[in-house]
Amino acid sequence: MIVVIKKDKDPKQVDSLINWIKGLGLGVHVSEGENSTVLGLIGDTSKVDIGLVRTLDIVESVTRVQEPYKNANRKFHPADTVIDVGGHKFGGGSFQIIAGPCSVESERQIIEVAQAVKRAGATILRGGAFKPRTSPYAFQGLGVDGLKLLKKAKQETGMPIISEIMSEEHIDDFEGVDILQVGARNMQNFDLLKRLGRLKTPVLLKRGLAATIEEWLMSAEYIMSEGNPNVILCERGIRTYETYTRNTLDISAIPILKERTHLPVIVDPSHASGLSRLVPPLSLASVGAGADGLMIEVHNDPVHALCDGAQSLRPDQFDGMVKAIDMMLPAVGKHRDDK
Amino acid sequence: MIVVIKKDKDPKQVDSLINWIKGLGLGVHVSEGENSTVLGLIGDTSKVDIGLVRTLDIVESVTRVQEPYKNANRKFHPADTVIDVGGHKFGGGSFQIIAGPCSVESERQIIEVAQAVKRAGATILRGGAFKPRTSPYAFQGLGVDGLKLLKKAKQETGMPIISEIMSEEHIDDFEGVDILQVGARNMQNFDLLKRLGRLKTPVLLKRGLAATIEEWLMSAEYIMSEGNPNVILCERGIRTYETYTRNTLDISAIPILKERTHLPVIVDPSHASGLSRLVPPLSLASVGAGADGLMIEVHNDPVHALCDGAQSLRPDQFDGMVKAIDMMLPAVGKHRDDK
Amino acid sequence: MIVVIKKDKDPKQVDSLINWIKGLGLGVHVSEGENSTVLGLIGDTSKVDIGLVRTLDIVESVTRVQEPYKNANRKFHPADTVIDVGGHKFGGGSFQIIAGPCSVESERQIIEVAQAVKRAGATILRGGAFKPRTSPYAFQGLGVDGLKLLKKAKQETGMPIISEIMSEEHIDDFEGVDILQVGARNMQNFDLLKRLGRLKTPVLLKRGLAATIEEWLMSAEYIMSEGNPNVILCERGIRTYETYTRNTLDISAIPILKERTHLPVIVDPSHASGLSRLVPPLSLASVGAGADGLMIEVHNDPVHALCDGAQSLRPDQFDGMVKAIDMMLPAVGKHRDDK
Amino acid sequence: MIVVIKKDKDPKQVDSLINWIKGLGLGVHVSEGENSTVLGLIGDTSKVDIGLVRTLDIVESVTRVQEPYKNANRKFHPADTVIDVGGHKFGGGSFQIIAGPCSVESERQIIEVAQAVKRAGATILRGGAFKPRTSPYAFQGLGVDGLKLLKKAKQETGMPIISEIMSEEHIDDFEGVDILQVGARNMQNFDLLKRLGRLKTPVLLKRGLAATIEEWLMSAEYIMSEGNPNVILCERGIRTYETYTRNTLDISAIPILKERTHLPVIVDPSHASGLSRLVPPLSLASVGAGADGLMIEVHNDPVHALCDGAQSLRPDQFDGMVKAIDMMLPAVGKHRDDK
Repeated sequence: MIVVIKKDKDPKQVDSLINWIKGLGLGVHVSEGENSTVLGLIGDTSKVDIGLVRTLDIVESVTRVQEPYKNANRKFHPADTVIDVGGHKFGGGSFQIIAGPCSVESERQIIEVAQAVKRAGATILRGGAFKPRTSPYAFQGLGVDGLKLLKKAKQETGMPIISEIMSEEHIDDFEGVDILQVGARNMQNFDLLKRLGRLKTPVLLKRGLAATIEEWLMSAEYIMSEGNPNVILCERGIRTYETYTRNTLDISAIPILKERTHLPVIVDPSHASGLSRLVPPLSLASVGAGADGLMIEVHNDPVHALCDGAQSLRPDQFDGMVKAIDMMLPAVGKHRDDK
Repeated sequence: MIVVIKKDKDPKQVDSLINWIKGLGLGVHVSEGENSTVLGLIGDTSKVDIGLVRTLDIVESVTRVQEPYKNANRKFHPADTVIDVGGHKFGGGSFQIIAGPCSVESERQIIEVAQAVKRAGATILRGGAFKPRTSPYAFQGLGVDGLKLLKKAKQETGMPIISEIMSEEHIDDFEGVDILQVGARNMQNFDLLKRLGRLKTPVLLKRGLAATIEEWLMSAEYIMSEGNPNVILCERGIRTYETYTRNTLDISAIPILKERTHLPVIVDPSHASGLSRLVPPLSLASVGAGADGLMIEVHNDPVHALCDGAQSLRPDQFDGMVKAIDMMLPAVGKHRDDK
Repeated sequence: MIVVIKKDKDPKQVDSLINWIKGLGLGVHVSEGENSTVLGLIGDTSKVDIGLVRTLDIVESVTRVQEPYKNANRKFHPADTVIDVGGHKFGGGSFQIIAGPCSVESERQIIEVAQAVKRAGATILRGGAFKPRTSPYAFQGLGVDGLKLLKKAKQETGMPIISEIMSEEHIDDFEGVDILQVGARNMQNFDLLKRLGRLKTPVLLKRGLAATIEEWLMSAEYIMSEGNPNVILCERGIRTYETYTRNTLDISAIPILKERTHLPVIVDPSHASGLSRLVPPLSLASVGAGADGLMIEVHNDPVHALCDGAQSLRPDQFDGMVKAIDMMLPAVGKHRDDK
Repeated sequence: MIVVIKKDKDPKQVDSLINWIKGLGLGVHVSEGENSTVLGLIGDTSKVDIGLVRTLDIVESVTRVQEPYKNANRKFHPADTVIDVGGHKFGGGSFQIIAGPCSVESERQIIEVAQAVKRAGATILRGGAFKPRTSPYAFQGLGVDGLKLLKKAKQETGMPIISEIMSEEHIDDFEGVDILQVGARNMQNFDLLKRLGRLKTPVLLKRGLAATIEEWLMSAEYIMSEGNPNVILCERGIRTYETYTRNTLDISAIPILKERTHLPVIVDPSHASGLSRLVPPLSLASVGAGADGLMIEVHNDPVHALCDGAQSLRPDQFDGMVKAIDMMLPAVGKHRDDK
């Protein structure tokens, strides 16, 4: 960490700051320049509160040289982390497609969608049981019953399953779920992250609505530092001023993450855009940007079907999209399981 | 709710949509225009998923006529909610100042700061025990021990106390805390909100980092719909592209909230800006905008003092600021307890 | 346009509003509902100031049914506009690559880069002569001399050329330039747009730093409504809170624009990210999203070369990227000129 | 400027960078640390393209120690700039209120509004003649005729006048206008800024829709570096994700600007919010934050009056607001002309 001190500052204040830094167990290398004094901090600076130092009156600027994340950092772990979920690999050149309905609604629905997406090439089944809803008056999901139906579909089709967990109090109910999803709204629910860090089950960590890439990696770090190395990152759009789409898919985040971390990175284009007709082009864009997989909403129910609606694709649309993805994967050096 | 259907749409699809709406227990008034068909939904539309309807292929646009919040809505509760905390009133023309250190560090620290801010006019003591930190390696607060010290300061000074709660699992430890604070990162931790809704203790609900005003009121609604009417809203800055300040204080949110809801609204200028020298002007701006109070960080410890630093004021600076606030309050028709 | 009137409003005010609308030459269809009155405006509503109506006290909401852009609207012009620039087509299934240095610096530099990018498959040569710079103290480009060197490179290589125009006062100097570029900062310089609308030369219109898609199309409309139908849209990233990249490439804008307008849409990944190593993945993502072309910075000069730097690729990196693009184009049904 | 070089970088590349910096006429102080090499640049670094250096592959980070603006910088000009407009002072403890209609519409309208706002305490008359409109089909203002009517109102009332200039081609028409306004959309129309810099007439420079505070000051620098020191900055809201208000008033910008620059800073709450009922609270907030004045829209015409609408106040509302401002000014040590 490099701390630049303002010109003409009281040397006593500077000394006090140096002593405070040394008190944290760090070394300090002082370099006096014409216009400023530069402090180079030596040692493990991940404990230093950069926000605090930056706002001190005598400080002109602070620059991290080390990233504050360690377990997630590609510098210390150059090879891709490969996470195996029931024989399907995330990372290391594999490309996975997670698909399924927004919410689990009935046994018939979840099994039919599962069979349809499996036929088209999906390898993991998604389905919401506990739903985070802006309104307390909206349908909050089937809860534990939804998880049971999802597990039935797993049995029926052999597909591993993923579902969102919203509170550490539900952890026992998720026994048998293959990937635990942390939603955007809970990306900084630190108590939940720590609890998931004490499991070994893979965690799919969605980016918070307005989280920076660094904050997102720090949330992965919360899970990893407790002992669970199996974190999959999922870009799902960020909040910007543009309202045409529900969120703005931050496509640049993919190559940046692939450079900064060894963790697998996938994209959820359904939630990013909120519009089913944008899902195919955004999926192909994600392939081009270097993603390790996709998570797609697919429905088979008449309510959605009638209007060809919302953010979910019909099974036949999903099928067509997977064929286009297969044409593009060789250009980025990636492959699907059976290819 | 007004749903505008696109021109030249298949009447069968429109009929299906109308049937689906009626299935939710709502009436539908259909008005055929030259360029579009307009559906007027009659009844309690708070259950309708506006996001779903908006993204249907046959729908041009959807407009809510009713706000989706009821308990928090000033339309149904025109008079200000007044929340009494140990004899100090939030709302109804009263102006309260909450002050104290960012974190509780020691018995001596918290008691000294409490006495200093009480002398200057603060009526409620703040102090962090559980600290939400971006990094798992940063100091996470004294936890339960911090709460004990805060309660000791309450005993010593007679000031009611407020502290942040991060998980429903800690609820018993907060017995004796007068206001439970929900931080920006947990504004949509719905399980926590529901749990706090089953208490009667006042809840201070901070705005999420990128929450709209409507989403914020819907989170208040989560608490209120479970039975707890005592919610205080606290604006603390939103995330924008401007990086000079840590967050951008959304000063317009104050008059908008005062119009839309009967709940008291206060401002936290310390976290909004992250710079102590901006706290006085932003506090005076909040008074001008019509806020019902402020929450201010004040420190007395040598680490901060040495550098006159960060987002905390020194007691003497706090004292000067309160004097300027007292000069301004008559212009907005507000008063402090003892004035 | 649908105007929803608030409940219980003074009928006199509503009548006055209706009369005002009729005074604009529009018809009004009034529909009385239980909770609100809905006005349907009939006729050409593009003259109505939606912002003004929306903020009237008696108005609950206003919704456009017609988009405010006409010439640019795909509804009224379903087929792709195809713009021919020296035999190279933008739109209609063709894919063009514009390449060249950020600034024209010398005859040798611009000719060498032109030859290198032409060999790799670029069809149009870019080169900045007038440079919009945040600081008045920074190099402002070679100006008219830069344009002359660019024209020399056109003569030498046969490539059509594109350069940015910053003021209507320079229009004569751009005689012989094949595409006139309007930069992000001038997207709403309406006097400049109107002036370019009176030419027939193709205009490449970059998206403003914080422009919505609709505002961007309205700026295209300024050019088209004056008589110039040859507008190419260029997405170049928008300003968001994420600072890792200089701007956030709004990849979703591409499929949205392809749906809303018949104009060709290309992407500038160099300026969007500001990082040369992100240019290849973002270019492939743009292909996947359905773009009609790319504009890429390529350099051959030692200052950049030494550090492998900034947002410009080296010719050999550019060459490798074009090969990957060629592998992906069939998946999106697009082709390059000679393929 | 402090440049931190990444660890383990090729010394040849580092030497090349150092030589390039020296080639710009700057000195370089090299400090070798354990984890990084730090270059301190000595001399006038305002010419260095920080964006370019930051994106070089060998560079970890770049930090400016000097701000890139000089003429506008309070460090080099500690006393407030005081700009006298017809005897009314901006800066130095004075508080000015500019008021008038959005657009000049008729002689009677502009004179009646002028008289009304003058009575209530406004000192400068505003009125739009050239209107920047998103749509080419919207009313573009009365143009030159509007300016003539505004000058007539000046003659009639003795109030100095301000109006927006959109192109350097109109400069002669603005002879007799006391303050030239540059709108948000033209904040980085550098040709226009340079042209205004060659006059002595005060320029009111609005903040761009998504401009950082530094970019805004750099635009002021464009005007000042050409020789015109009379720049008044006007905060008018920035674009964020919150859509309740048209823009988000960045109230923190006021104290930051007062610290960074000696130029006067005023606020336009009418355009910031787009809602007339927010104008009074945002005006009082601006007083609290330390603004040197306000620019307010006031109307007297029946179209607006009927609906009590949009972003303009009625004269009697304006009058009430000025009285509240007068109650608050002593708390911030400011005064109006005649007080």
